[in-house]
Amino acid sequence: MLQPFDDTYFMKKALQEAEIAYDMGEVPVGAVIVVQNRIIARAHNLTEKLHDVTAHAEMQAITAAANFLDGKYLHDCTLYVTLEPCQMCGGALFWSQISKVVYGASDPQRGFKAMGTRLHPKTKIVNGVLKDDCSEIIKRFFIAKRNFN
Amino acid sequence: MLQPFDDTYFMKKALQEAEIAYDMGEVPVGAVIVVQNRIIARAHNLTEKLHDVTAHAEMQAITAAANFLDGKYLHDCTLYVTLEPCQMCGGALFWSQISKVVYGASDPQRGFKAMGTRLHPKTKIVNGVLKDDCSEIIKRFFIAKRNFN
Repeated sequence: MLQPFDDTYFMKKALQEAEIAYDMGEVPVGAVIVVQNRIIARAHNLTEKLHDVTAHAEMQAITAAANFLDGKYLHDCTLYVTLEPCQMCGGALFWSQISKVVYGASDPQRGFKAMGTRLHPKTKIVNGVLKDDCSEIIKRFFIAKRNFN
Repeated sequence: MLQPFDDTYFMKKALQEAEIAYDMGEVPVGAVIVVQNRIIARAHNLTEKLHDVTAHAEMQAITAAANFLDGKYLHDCTLYVTLEPCQMCGGALFWSQISKVVYGASDPQRGFKAMGTRLHPKTKIVNGVLKDDCSEIIKRFFIAKRNFN
């Protein structure tokens, strides 16, 4: 049976969000939140535009999804994010009790794993989905930034 | 010389925010951010009203202070918060590079210390300011909630 809505499909949607961030001069990270194969939140990093360190893609997606669901818990939801969440986003995901987190590229410096952040015990974690595409866009961003400065 | 603007003074302001949260049925945590003895942000927990796990007092205060300063870094700022920040808020404080964090009551279950969250190496941390008042309001909230349910 055809399974069009798999982790790769939704990670591509998160990558589209990362591309929007790239074009705005933001560190290119994108996220979507999905429930029953339906995207209920899309977001990309906006820390530069908003002058706000809390404006990571995941944080905005969590707020938007909770708004859509009219409830603060993200049970039965999956977050797709192009880069491994940081301490802050991991902490927000902990409170949300989200069912599943899928990320693309790892962040060995600032990712929640290296920082020792605890996600909720009910949260399933999958990593490495489209990891090459997810890390390539970040590398491309920093190379372009370095050459421009 | 008279020193009216000390840590106790500003923690009382954070406690006033916690009282507002209490009256709204929110877990009573309040925060203010101060620069050069001037309060530039006030916030209290709004997770229930907004249905949003990211709406902790500290997160809102960080966003509001950055908005006031028109820049995302909170150098030369002090956060006063009635309860020890969690992983999420600790992670946001890390990114903000805030100069000083002063909290009242400890949170041995969910506080950033127990959870192993790293604050920025430049951030000075002070705890225990008005800790009895800061923990009393939370105990009072949960006792009232238990008796009401």
